[in-house]
Parts: sequence; C-alpha cells; structure tokens
Amino acid sequence: MNTYFQRLQKVRQMMESNGWDALVITASDPHSSEYPGLRWKQVQWLTGFAGECGDLVITKDHAGLWTDTRYFIQANKVLPGTGYELHKTRVPEQVLIPEWLAKHAFADKEGQVVVALDGMTQTLSAVSDIRSAFEEAGRSEGTGAMTYSLVNAPDLLDELWEDRPAYPQSPIITLSAELAGESRQERIAWLRSEMEAKKCSAILLTALDEIVWMLNVRGSDVNYNPVIYSYLLVTQDKVQWYVVKNSHVAPDGETAASFDELRKDAVDVLPYSDVEMGIAALEGKRLWADPGTLNYNLYNVIMANLGQEGLQLAQSPVPLRKSIKNPTEIKGFIEANIEEGIALERFFYWLEHQLSAGETVTEWEASEKITSYRQQIPGYMGDSFETISAYGPGAALPHYVTPMENAPVIEPHGFYLCDTGGQYLFGTTDTTRTMPCGPCTELEKEDYTLVLKCHIDLSMAIFPKGTCGCHLDILVRNGLWQQKRNFGHGSGHGVGFFLNVHEGPQEFRQNFNSYPYVPGIVNTNEPGIYREGMHGVRHENVFVVEDAGTNEFGTWYRFNTITRCHIDTSVVKKELLTPEEIKWLNDYNASVYRDLAPRLAPEIAAWLKEKCRAI
Amino acid sequence: MNTYFQRLQKVRQMMESNGWDALVITASDPHSSEYPGLRWKQVQWLTGFAGECGDLVITKDHAGLWTDTRYFIQANKVLPGTGYELHKTRVPEQVLIPEWLAKHAFADKEGQVVVALDGMTQTLSAVSDIRSAFEEAGRSEGTGAMTYSLVNAPDLLDELWEDRPAYPQSPIITLSAELAGESRQERIAWLRSEMEAKKCSAILLTALDEIVWMLNVRGSDVNYNPVIYSYLLVTQDKVQWYVVKNSHVAPDGETAASFDELRKDAVDVLPYSDVEMGIAALEGKRLWADPGTLNYNLYNVIMANLGQEGLQLAQSPVPLRKSIKNPTEIKGFIEANIEEGIALERFFYWLEHQLSAGETVTEWEASEKITSYRQQIPGYMGDSFETISAYGPGAALPHYVTPMENAPVIEPHGFYLCDTGGQYLFGTTDTTRTMPCGPCTELEKEDYTLVLKCHIDLSMAIFPKGTCGCHLDILVRNGLWQQKRNFGHGSGHGVGFFLNVHEGPQEFRQNFNSYPYVPGIVNTNEPGIYREGMHGVRHENVFVVEDAGTNEFGTWYRFNTITRCHIDTSVVKKELLTPEEIKWLNDYNASVYRDLAPRLAPEIAAWLKEKCRAI
Repeated sequence: MNTYFQRLQKVRQMMESNGWDALVITASDPHSSEYPGLRWKQVQWLTGFAGECGDLVITKDHAGLWTDTRYFIQANKVLPGTGYELHKTRVPEQVLIPEWLAKHAFADKEGQVVVALDGMTQTLSAVSDIRSAFEEAGRSEGTGAMTYSLVNAPDLLDELWEDRPAYPQSPIITLSAELAGESRQERIAWLRSEMEAKKCSAILLTALDEIVWMLNVRGSDVNYNPVIYSYLLVTQDKVQWYVVKNSHVAPDGETAASFDELRKDAVDVLPYSDVEMGIAALEGKRLWADPGTLNYNLYNVIMANLGQEGLQLAQSPVPLRKSIKNPTEIKGFIEANIEEGIALERFFYWLEHQLSAGETVTEWEASEKITSYRQQIPGYMGDSFETISAYGPGAALPHYVTPMENAPVIEPHGFYLCDTGGQYLFGTTDTTRTMPCGPCTELEKEDYTLVLKCHIDLSMAIFPKGTCGCHLDILVRNGLWQQKRNFGHGSGHGVGFFLNVHEGPQEFRQNFNSYPYVPGIVNTNEPGIYREGMHGVRHENVFVVEDAGTNEFGTWYRFNTITRCHIDTSVVKKELLTPEEIKWLNDYNASVYRDLAPRLAPEIAAWLKEKCRAI
Repeated sequence: MNTYFQRLQKVRQMMESNGWDALVITASDPHSSEYPGLRWKQVQWLTGFAGECGDLVITKDHAGLWTDTRYFIQANKVLPGTGYELHKTRVPEQVLIPEWLAKHAFADKEGQVVVALDGMTQTLSAVSDIRSAFEEAGRSEGTGAMTYSLVNAPDLLDELWEDRPAYPQSPIITLSAELAGESRQERIAWLRSEMEAKKCSAILLTALDEIVWMLNVRGSDVNYNPVIYSYLLVTQDKVQWYVVKNSHVAPDGETAASFDELRKDAVDVLPYSDVEMGIAALEGKRLWADPGTLNYNLYNVIMANLGQEGLQLAQSPVPLRKSIKNPTEIKGFIEANIEEGIALERFFYWLEHQLSAGETVTEWEASEKITSYRQQIPGYMGDSFETISAYGPGAALPHYVTPMENAPVIEPHGFYLCDTGGQYLFGTTDTTRTMPCGPCTELEKEDYTLVLKCHIDLSMAIFPKGTCGCHLDILVRNGLWQQKRNFGHGSGHGVGFFLNVHEGPQEFRQNFNSYPYVPGIVNTNEPGIYREGMHGVRHENVFVVEDAGTNEFGTWYRFNTITRCHIDTSVVKKELLTPEEIKWLNDYNASVYRDLAPRLAPEIAAWLKEKCRAI
C-alpha cells in the first residue's frame, strides 16, 4: 500500500480519537517561511509532493492538496494513490481553504465543526481567514448548531513522524556595514523610530529574512536561504535575539565570534525557546507584531500576557525598507550579476561544445557544471535555489526538479532551459535562459520570440510614481495574449541582498498588491510559456528600478537590467518584434559582451562576440 | 464680500452653536447618485464649484474641497476668495476625508471630536470609513479624552438655503420587454433568486439606476440621467416601489399609464416618503441592503426596526447583471451609435464648411448644433451628458463646461474637442473626437497621435477570462508613458442602456477593482492628454466585450468597437504608430464609411469617403 495513504490513515485515526472534523496542515514553519527547513516539510512527508507551495486539508471523507499553477503537472504526477486530490489555486475559479471548509466541506453540517490546526505553522492571518469564512457562511464560533471551533494542535505530527529532523542550526556569520551599506545600529535606530510613529514600545520580528537583514547576520538554516531560525524582540532600550539552540551553547568559532560582535552592539543573544518568556516580560508595553508572519501559538502567548490592548497587529515595516536597496547593495548586485554571467557563459560555451562534439550531457550534469563554475567565484556562498536544468518536455514544468539519477539527456535539437542563481556575499542572482540545442520547430521559435517580446516590453517600460506590479504585469503578457498564449505564474519577484531569492512586498502578477515600484527595488522579469509534453520557454533577467526624471506630468521611473548573460538570437523570428524591441535586444547583448568579455578566456570571449552580434 | 465666504461664515455659526468640530458635506443625494438632482447641489451652493465630484469638510479654522484630477484646474479657478482650499484626490499622495479628519485636523485634540454629517447624503460606507479612520488613529467612539462622536444632521443646510429646489418629479415612461430584452417580471424573479441564495427575505434597492433598470421604467428626474427618485423594496411576495411625490398624486397621463402598467405586474406604487414605514413592516425578515448606496439615515431606520440580525449588508447584485448587456440591448447600442454617428458626421461636415467659409462659430453654437442634429433621430430622448465643446485651451480642462454666453470662438487652427452623447430609447452614446481646425503644431500632432496609439492599443487587446480594468489600464497609457506623458482621469467607464452614461461596476483605471471584463459589457475607451493653456486631446469610442474563443491556454475575450464616427487622420504622425495600429485605424475608418454612408446625404457621404481614406 502507498506509504502516503498509510500515513493519511494514521492521521485520520488521530483525528477521530480527538474528535476533529478537519485538519489543516500548511507547508510553512513557525516563521511563515516560504522555504522552511526540513523539520517542517510536513506536507511532503504526508503526500510526497515536494512543490514549494502546498497546503493540506484532511476530513473524514476528503483529503486535498491546495497548490498553484506552477505545480499542477507535478501534483498530478505524485498524488495518485496517496488519497489526496488536487485543489487548484491562482486560477479564476479557485476555492481557497477557508472558503472550502466553510462552504463546501461542512456547508450542510447542522452541529459544530471542529477544525484542528498546527498553531506553530499557521499564521494569525491564516487563522483569521478561516474564522471569517465560517462567519460569512453563517456559522459562529462556539458549540451547538451551526457553530465551529478551532483547536490549536502544535506539532501534532510529531508523534507519527519518526526521525523528524531537528531544529536547524548552522554557523552564523556577520556582514560588515561596508558590505551591507548600513550598520545594524542604524537599522535598529530606524526600527525604533518606526515603533515610535506607531506608538508601540516593542516590536517582535518573526520572519527570518527580516531578522537577519536587521542584524546584518547570515546563516544557512534553510537550503539556499541564508537565514537563521530565531526571533527578534526590540524595545526602546533592548535588542533581544532569541537564537541559541542546544548545540549553540558551545557554538563553533565563527558563530561564537558573531555572537560576541552582536553583544558588543548591545544585542542580547538568548535561547530560541525563551521567546515566550521575553514576551511575558513585556508587561505594560504595547507590542507590534505582523499578523502575516506571527504564528498562532505566539499570538496566544501575547494575548495571555499582554492582552488585546498590549498588541498592535500591523504589517512589519521591514520588508518594504529591505526591498529598497541602498547604493552599496545595488553596486554589489551589479557585480554579482557580472560574476554570475561569467560562470553562465563558461557553462553555455562548454555545453555547446559538448553537444556539437556528440558528447552525452544529462540535465543533472549540466546543473552540476553550472555550480562548479560558480564555485570558482570569490564570495560565492552557495546557490540561491535548486537549479532548474530541464531539456524539452521537462522545461514544460515551470518548477521542474532535475532528478539526480537517470536524468534526461540534453538532445541536439529543441530547447534546454536553465533557471539558476547564486548567493554571493555581495548579492543574490536569478537568471533563466532558454538555449536552442540544434534545429527548432517553427512553434518553438514563435514561442521563444513571443516570450522574449514580453520580456523586452517590461524591460523597456517607463512608468509614473505610484505604479504597482499588478498594473505593469500586462506588459509582460500582452505579446503572448495577442496570440492567445499565456503562462500561469507570476512575472517577477523581488530579490534579497545575499538573502532569499524571493522577497516582497512588490511583485509582478495580477493579484492586487498596493506596493508601488520605486527606485532601488531589485526584481526579476520572467515571462514564459509551457506546452506539456513539448517544450518550455522562459527568459529571466533581474533589473533595478531607477529614476527617469520629473516633468509636468509627474515623476517617472524605469528599469535598468543588471543580469549579464547573452540571449540567443539564432531562433528569433524578427518579424514578431518591433524595431524598438530588436534594438533593445541588440543593445542588451552588446552590454553583455562589453561587461563580460574582458574577464573571459579569449576563446570564450570570441565565441560570445558571435553570440552577441546584432540582428 | 464673496457670497460663498458669507455662506461659509453662516455654516460656522451653525457649527459653533451646535458644538460641532467638523462638518462633512458630500456632493451626493439620498441615493448616492453620481449626478444628483438640483436639490442636492449643496457643494455648489456653498462654494460655487460645479464639478461632478467634490466633498467638503469645514472646521473652525479650515474649509476644504476634496476633488479629483479632472477638476484641479476648475477648482483652482473658482475657489479663491471662498475660504475653501483644494484637497487633491486620485493622486498618489492623496489624503482622503476620513484620514484627514482623524490624522490631520484633530490629531492632537485631547478631548472629544464632534463630527456632524448630513445622514441623508452620506452612505453607510462613507460613515464607516470615518469611524475606521478615527479608530485607527487611536480615537474611540464616545465621550472623554481621545474620543469622537458622529452627529447625524439630516438636511442641515435647509435652514440656510432659501429657494432650495424641491424633490424632482418628472413624467415616467415604461420600456417594453421587446425594447429592453427582458421583462420586469423576469428581472424580479432573478432578484428573488439572488435573495434566496443570500438567505435574505427582502432587499432594499437604493441606487436610482438599479431601480429603473429593475422595473423597466425611465424618467428624467436628473439632467441627462433618465432616473426616478424612488426606493424599491422587494420581498418574496411583494414589490413595493416608493416613488409617488406630492404632485404624482394626480400624475400626468403618461405617468398614470405607467403606474397602471406596473400595478398590473404586481408592483405596488407607493409614496416616496413611506419607505421608512415599509422598512418597519418588514419585522422578522432579513433585509439585504448595499452599504455603498444605503444612506446613513435609512441605515438607522433599519437598525431601529430590524436590528443587526435583520440586516444583511452586501453589495447589490444589480450593477453587475445590469452591466452585462443582453443581445437586444447590444443590438440597440449598435443602432444608437450609427444614428449618433450620422448626427456627428453631419455636424463635423457643417463645422468644417463654416470654418473654411470664414464664418464665426462659438463653442456654444457648435454644442447646440450637435444637439439639433441629434433631435432629428427617432427615439432620441435627450443628451446623455452636457456636451463638452471646447476649443484649444478650453479642451485642456478634461471636464470643461462650455459657457452659454461669451463662449470662445473656434479658430481655424489647432484642435476643437467635443465629448458628447445622446439618450435613445434603444441605447446611450458617448463619443469624443478631437478635430484639427486648420494648421497644427508638431506638439499637437504628436499628442494627437500618441493618444490615438493608446486608444488603439486598448481596442486591439485580447485578454483571458478574469482580467480586470486595472490590469488592462496600462495598455491605454503605455504609448504616452513611453514619452513621459500621461493623463489624470480614468480611461473608460461602463455605459447604461438608455440609462446613466457612467455605470459600474467595471472601469478602466488604476484603482483595484475586482470585476472582470466579460462578454456583454459596454464600455468607453478614452485616453487623453491635457496641456494647460495650450490644448487638449481625447479620443473616445465605446466597445462591447466579445468572446474570442477558447484554447489550451484558456478562454479569451476582445473588444468590438461600436462607435461610428471617423477619426481624423490628417494630423497623424504615422512614424509613431506600428503597422498593426495603422491597420486598425484604417479598418475602423472604413467601417465608419461602410455603416454611415448609405444613410448620409450624397455630398456628406462623399466628404466622409475622403475623411475615411486609408493612410
């Protein structure tokens, strides 16, 4: 019998003995991380589904996985036999978990509905959404007819999950103010001014990337994400970092030095599990916490100790400020993209010569080769996400996972897509290129060109102050829409500075998001097209928002593309591009050659010159 | 002394004697109408400002008019000397009235803030926004330190305003099911099914256009808007129309016949002022009302009679269904636009010949001429809004009001802009053309062409199901943005069927609006550019959303332009347009000639043929 189906049966037994009608399990951790540590891969442990986004609801007679357009194909592959059905999100007809629970699963249940959830991995916002959905469906909280109740069941899978991974604890390093462009003291002073403006005497930061950014520290508690599991509690006179796990009591040399440096900067370094005590000690203070990342467990702790008046729920001010990079960070990003470009061009040179020599190269070998070139760069700290190295039909899965064993071979025709990035001490990169490996079909060429057209149209945008990602998103789709083609993922995300490769709060997608694009924001531009069983195309660069001047119509911004890796022109159908779009493409490839050639071996520089020739 | 300043002083005396710290006066009426009857032109009576949108806040030491980008120039002209200052809305830095009251006007006031408002002309939503702003600013409702209280002061200006106009009451006509495409019984049956789905046993419609649409009736209680001041209360067994004003007790023949027809369809025709009694009689029922159009007075009546459990506040289902036109309505719209086109082409032919003959034509005479041609059309019921007939600098005011006396003369150079429309029994029209009257500057030609490019780019859009106006809006701006030019108004609005020329719920503008564009929606497309003291350009057509087929990427929609009036090509700078855009323009003008020529006098048809020649 399917392992996952067996686990589902055990969960249902637990539900029955506890009297739970439904159980909600999310893919997150106590810090609402997009990429949680292994300890919190609860959804994967339950279903085998390894997508980055997927939440579960289990009832007596239904088990569902909620995931978005990026993962439909993947989910359909792994779910059969597990007992779980796919619920699609980010589609117009989506029914999200709160609404599904309230209006579908239990619409007709006369009595009480008991919903259990792991308060450690549910944010307060997520719990509020479930409450609202039940209230809207005419069901009030309590006992009796047409009521619901929520049961907080922290770490409820612990008793079923043998060999569950422990809390992560990686070595901790610090970044100097010279490297980060700002000291931790400056950031803390700014945070305190924000607290004052909000009339709060304390703030609890719960999101890991916010915490490491505030303190100019980095770790590797999560694959590809240089974060450290911890909480940060700041008052007007104290900075308390709840970070020390068991083994950190005798930390490694680097971590010990980092702790010393922090203590010198008046940061208290405290045990991770003491955060509840820290909250209790705030009595009489007004604490600011972000309901979008505060877990339900800690919310209950705050309410028990400080009460409603002691809690100010509001978005954290950190993500917005973190997203607007300072000049040092931008300089670092530009350098990181040049270094990355050198690695990528060396890789593509190698790949093309392997293929033309008739050598066999698998997707996995290609992926390893990219990392090997990257490892030669000083300041390289690891990859920024798992490289998507996908040939042909594999690339039709926007978030394909390249198998380590028996990986498909890159054939000398059609497209090889690679989406890859590195973490450097001075910046984070994220690049996708779709490379023709030999002859391509007319449809492949058309798709390649139309996606490129979309990519260029966003790159060339000039827009007034106040414009948001959901306004600009159509620019990176219209070229495809005119041919009735589309893609089912967002068109761009913020990139952290030697931090998570996905960061908010701005994004290019159709969801209403009121954070405008302002100078200093570093963001990807990544349209694509995916044809199941055939091919996938994506062109991704990173750009920085820049000021473009002010006139009688207002203040204008534009994008400055900083990724440096040539875009192959051999399969471009020129008739699908406007003269302005062709000029952008030629200018871009010229800038790639200009910036990389001096730092490449002569034979690779010569090869790149051909690749970057104007069309 | 300035009349308006005197009135302001009287209002402040009233405020002082009542102990009010602030007074809020809106430009609306008890039905939240965009265009209220003369009785509710309170803002105009107080300030002289005649813009369609403008709300006032008066405190002891400040008086402000809040209005949007369309009216900045106009407000700056009329406000000096009145004591009012302009507060700009629909700009990124806007501070709306609730926030201004809570965070600016009274941020530091230690005690209670008393805000008076006219509950007749404030919607429940608007009042809720004021409450929320105060709560967010840390001020709770009540008495004592850091509190606020709201005083409902219905029709408070009555005692100051001598000769205030009475309640409007115009003759009432009915539309047959053949003309409207649907009978009132069908619409009431649909409304009852909506009530049932919402678990409500009654619904109160408060918006005038919703009411006349439901009942297939029309009046002319408001200039240009064929609505009737009334309320509609529907239960599962009754339809109660609260409409009869004093003089309707002995209605004119047409109105009497309409009332008879309605009574035959089981609609109770009741006195307007009895609506409060009707609500009181609902005891035990659950009433659905729309907080966006329900006035604060009636809300209080409902709460007093039915209590919180008896009231379901939710958006009315009528606007969405009304916006999706049925095939009969669409056929009517197409015919109305052909009739309108004939009137407009006759007008432009006349105007061109007057100008070339050296005759003097004022903006006012031109406006009258358009209406005179329209009056010859069978089924013409009046203009759909006051024609904007503006030459040169006048057109730089997007919502210019052509003066009846001493109107500017249309000169034989530069642009004449006219934005005009008619009400027909079978549809409503709204067209803007910018006509070169002779030689034009290079800047005029550039602006003309770029606005046209924007207009065409939206017209040519193909987009997937689920796409909203705020997603599409950039298509109608990007052509200007690329040249760092812009315009400060929405790019398109829904058009009623022989109803208000502005209707929701969809719209093209950057505000987040989650109503997608679906087949059957009739909407304008109207980009512009405005250069103060120089010229204004706007190109406006109406289109219908149509299905464009379904493929593996989803379901696709497109726009079918139904306005028929040639777009002048003599000043088009072709190099600013793509070949696709030029093709659209030529195809459009060809369709104008094809559809209108057979119904025009031969000399006008010949003239139009030249105007429609491909470029």
